[in-house]
Amino acid sequence: MNSITTVQPDPILLTPGPLTTSLRTRQAMMVDWGSWDDKFNELTASLCYQLLDIVNGTNSHRCVPLQGSGTFAVEAAIGTLVPRNGKVLVLINGAYGKRLAKICEVLGRSYSTFETAEDEPTTAADVDRLLAADPAITHVALIHCETSTGILNPLEEIAKVIAGHGKRLIIDAMSSFGALPIDAQTVPFDALIAASGKCLEGVPGMGFVFARNESLAAAAGNSHSLAMDLHDQYTYMAKTGQWRFTPPTHVVAALHEALLQYNLEGGLPARLKRYAKNCQTLLDEMAKLGLRSFLPESIQAPIIVTFHAPRDPRYQFRGFYERVKAKGFILYPGKLTQVETFRVGCIGHVNDSGMRAAVAAIAEVLEEMEVVEI
Amino acid sequence: MNSITTVQPDPILLTPGPLTTSLRTRQAMMVDWGSWDDKFNELTASLCYQLLDIVNGTNSHRCVPLQGSGTFAVEAAIGTLVPRNGKVLVLINGAYGKRLAKICEVLGRSYSTFETAEDEPTTAADVDRLLAADPAITHVALIHCETSTGILNPLEEIAKVIAGHGKRLIIDAMSSFGALPIDAQTVPFDALIAASGKCLEGVPGMGFVFARNESLAAAAGNSHSLAMDLHDQYTYMAKTGQWRFTPPTHVVAALHEALLQYNLEGGLPARLKRYAKNCQTLLDEMAKLGLRSFLPESIQAPIIVTFHAPRDPRYQFRGFYERVKAKGFILYPGKLTQVETFRVGCIGHVNDSGMRAAVAAIAEVLEEMEVVEI
Repeated sequence: MNSITTVQPDPILLTPGPLTTSLRTRQAMMVDWGSWDDKFNELTASLCYQLLDIVNGTNSHRCVPLQGSGTFAVEAAIGTLVPRNGKVLVLINGAYGKRLAKICEVLGRSYSTFETAEDEPTTAADVDRLLAADPAITHVALIHCETSTGILNPLEEIAKVIAGHGKRLIIDAMSSFGALPIDAQTVPFDALIAASGKCLEGVPGMGFVFARNESLAAAAGNSHSLAMDLHDQYTYMAKTGQWRFTPPTHVVAALHEALLQYNLEGGLPARLKRYAKNCQTLLDEMAKLGLRSFLPESIQAPIIVTFHAPRDPRYQFRGFYERVKAKGFILYPGKLTQVETFRVGCIGHVNDSGMRAAVAAIAEVLEEMEVVEI
Repeated sequence: MNSITTVQPDPILLTPGPLTTSLRTRQAMMVDWGSWDDKFNELTASLCYQLLDIVNGTNSHRCVPLQGSGTFAVEAAIGTLVPRNGKVLVLINGAYGKRLAKICEVLGRSYSTFETAEDEPTTAADVDRLLAADPAITHVALIHCETSTGILNPLEEIAKVIAGHGKRLIIDAMSSFGALPIDAQTVPFDALIAASGKCLEGVPGMGFVFARNESLAAAAGNSHSLAMDLHDQYTYMAKTGQWRFTPPTHVVAALHEALLQYNLEGGLPARLKRYAKNCQTLLDEMAKLGLRSFLPESIQAPIIVTFHAPRDPRYQFRGFYERVKAKGFILYPGKLTQVETFRVGCIGHVNDSGMRAAVAAIAEVLEEMEVVEI
């Protein structure tokens, strides 16, 4: 039989996760771990300890890892921590906020939504007014950095207002955790959710929830799901050191290795500095080509940037994408309905010279496509 | 700063998944794939096509891959395909059968259970009698090969009886799929569930459900969960070629690569032959040491073997496990409450000479531990 060859492309992913990881992180997946073995349990425990440390939550919160994508962890957090008779106020300015509402809908949790335009952050004053108007609300859920556009919502101010009303906060920090600082001692939250394949630069396949100790302890039997019951997941892990159901062992090992490098790099400040430089380089270089970002810089998180597509009729995203990919960079399509855009991620194992090279590739492609009117 | 060294053990896993994979399979994880990219979509499509072919289900069923462990896929199948007013008869002879019942309980699906001893397969006559006695039952759920012991339930006969009653069948084939033949055209089922890290010898991190076309089409809006809604997952994938939420890209690539090797080896017949030889070698060599298997050979699947622990007071599992591990083999603890046992898997990237070496290591350890009375 002929040998089968798999074509293995390896362009740089300028996408918001999966993203480009380091060789060292991927090499950590070359070992098959026994999920019952002590060594693997130590890996999990070390992972949770390091993750909690990033949010300064060691004393106030538990880290509950969960198999699946980030959305699984978000659903698990809502299903486990919002009581069946609770009511969630969902703050929306993009697709991921809408997904939060959809989760409440499917789980049968009472909820209301507050939606602003995709380039308009929710404000603390909005939340104050909404909470005053509806005392039935028990929880507020929001997206820290909305990947649809890259917009940053003012988490600290909003958290303060929510705490002032005695309500509970659930933060989807998928795209921001590890790069943008969040301190559990000054930003009071019941749950903060993130995943392996984002700013920590692991590979996708697991999420994790930081759940406030008291809230998690009170959540026994509340979940709508067995697999996504964070109380059960945590209780079993605390007792045995093991995951309740088969863990994605290679993904766990890769995240552990990625965290070692995160700390070697200098932890969150260094990660933020690199991403901020990536973002600034991207904005500056793209501006030279006349490509304008969708958001004003004041509300732009250094995670992913949405650019207006060129107006030239010779531009179309598919061809543009394929040509840029052939030069070694994978871009991301826009997610806006009103405006034609595309997105470029600033996160992953890449630095500002990588961003410069990406923009150079984009410039070449626009020239090849004879896109003149930007 | 000093460099950080991670100790990377690589003993052979004689466990029922995660298991030992080939170097080639792990090397497929050295690429970071864009989850939005055409090449990755082709990988997913090829995966689903090949998986369906193994059960001869191309015309009758859809393959719906799902992020997470196998249990996530089992819960997703029950939550999506059993109507809210349905009733499930759960057939139990071990821990995984009990888990099926627990899922029905948490999801609020009506169910009844039929439990036999851990060394006693459910019979078709049992199922015939139970279905005749309770017309409210709409679905029967069973474990094909119960990993708690390694027992094989008579799937074909049971499926025939269920079809005769006009009821629907849900098969947890986690440990058997890919090694033991199941033909969707002669074993009528609504859902068959398996996962990446079992007999296909991929790495853990995703499951998949073969769902009967009509049943899946009728399941819109039935799921208790957004993330585990197989109808939504399938519909989105059929429309876009993409996973609904971030896929575990490296796990998907590894499974695709594992399937190429599966087909090169000779597909299911060759996989079964290797595992059967592993199992027979294991039983024969362990018998020479006086170690007796818990199940009679007639109901022993060639997947995992449960052995009675030696009676000698100098034997204790923990020390035994650690010593065998030091010699390069990871065993699995027993899961029986009544009898002291341990388990040895026959699956993974290992052949009969590997099994011989494992038993030789076990023999050495028993001698070192001065375990005389077997």
